[in-house]
Amino acid sequence: MIRTQVKNKIKEPRITLVGAGPGDAELISLKGVRILKSADVVLYDALVNSELLDFAPESAIKVYVGKRSGDHSYSQEAVNKLMIDYALNYGHVVRLKGGDPFVFGRGFEELEMAASYSIQTEVVPGISSSISVPALQGIPVTHRGASESFWVVTGTTSSGQISKDLYTAAKTDATIVVLMGVKKLKEIAEIFVAEGKSRLPAAVIQNGSMKNEKVVVATAATIFETAQDHKIDSPALIIFGEVVGLHSKFQPIKAFYELSEPE
Amino acid sequence: MIRTQVKNKIKEPRITLVGAGPGDAELISLKGVRILKSADVVLYDALVNSELLDFAPESAIKVYVGKRSGDHSYSQEAVNKLMIDYALNYGHVVRLKGGDPFVFGRGFEELEMAASYSIQTEVVPGISSSISVPALQGIPVTHRGASESFWVVTGTTSSGQISKDLYTAAKTDATIVVLMGVKKLKEIAEIFVAEGKSRLPAAVIQNGSMKNEKVVVATAATIFETAQDHKIDSPALIIFGEVVGLHSKFQPIKAFYELSEPE
Repeated sequence: MIRTQVKNKIKEPRITLVGAGPGDAELISLKGVRILKSADVVLYDALVNSELLDFAPESAIKVYVGKRSGDHSYSQEAVNKLMIDYALNYGHVVRLKGGDPFVFGRGFEELEMAASYSIQTEVVPGISSSISVPALQGIPVTHRGASESFWVVTGTTSSGQISKDLYTAAKTDATIVVLMGVKKLKEIAEIFVAEGKSRLPAAVIQNGSMKNEKVVVATAATIFETAQDHKIDSPALIIFGEVVGLHSKFQPIKAFYELSEPE
Repeated sequence: MIRTQVKNKIKEPRITLVGAGPGDAELISLKGVRILKSADVVLYDALVNSELLDFAPESAIKVYVGKRSGDHSYSQEAVNKLMIDYALNYGHVVRLKGGDPFVFGRGFEELEMAASYSIQTEVVPGISSSISVPALQGIPVTHRGASESFWVVTGTTSSGQISKDLYTAAKTDATIVVLMGVKKLKEIAEIFVAEGKSRLPAAVIQNGSMKNEKVVVATAATIFETAQDHKIDSPALIIFGEVVGLHSKFQPIKAFYELSEPE
């Protein structure tokens, strides 16, 4: 009896937060893939490319815990609870998160929750949309002569308000990247206009790095209307700054202003 | 003669900028590896993990074009020229850059140079040190209740001065990440102290994501002395913000202040 008993391996619970990158499945890291291969459970978000689930063992449990704007099917508390339950019962939980886990991903809250259960954790950074989505459109967040810094702000704070940091950001020469802000694009663009930056180049990029990517390029004064005309919706990222002027679509806008104001 | 002639394949010149990530070779993307496998030439920087060169074909030419603080062996102009020469003569040049190519990497200048020769280009984003190096130390650049945004600034502008953006940054509640600033740590920390932020948590992380990683955690007022005591040197990243207070090494500092000022 003792010799033939099937071993019931009690696996050590552990949780790894893995950044899945901006959307294109090839933009996950080698380490992210290695970690996925050892998953017993994968909890994945709405913005994660589902092709990545193929890296996990077929036997692994895959659970969608996505939250999209306005859809509260999974609260953060519910995700935290699931994550702990799965780790205690199944072993290695991979928490696969869009972009980087610590860029508005509430990743640290998940680590704190795991720590409160003495579950060991690890973080595998991801390629953040904030930098890579503009880059893939040929917009560098920094460029000599145009920008010495970039500032990444959430468009939607926990209280649902526009972050006060955006009001300060609009006063600076930094490249400003706004995540989760497209539903408030009108109000956000107006902050820049109010600072006298009507002609500051601005872009909105929907589904960055994916086949269905859409981009509009305009100025702070015209970006909301332009995005509406092109039916841009979330998930999308907004970028304000002279670096947006380097985008090919900005050249006719620049030419128009130069024509209308000869000096 | 005609039948037996060895074909001299003229390869289409092209240049791909690839972000190598923060240092750990496993933090390159799958796409970065795929691109490296098709390289005829790899031009790589000082902060790139040389293990990554093994992904390139053995026959590929590998050229170190590193610039380190104070060592001007390869100017940007020389790198640009090499890149073009190699592309025209050998085909596919992979420009392998530390972190992400557009985060103070002068990547856009390289694209512009390639465009001026009508050489086709592509960009493969990388995991930026600015986000991932703090993350790997357990410091999230954003965290509810601590930071709604993060601002990444270069410590060394093209003119050798401290970026004016840092003076504005020190006035805000954003998490501030300073790249290439450790040689000016004293002056940079003083900017925060001058804003009345002596006790703002601050960290310096050298060789982030690598085996020889070193970290010091202190406050804006004490970070320079602490970094000196621990002989922290470049390459290193500086981070200021309440999120640094989440690091385990900050807990005794916090306890000290709470003890010395009971309320």
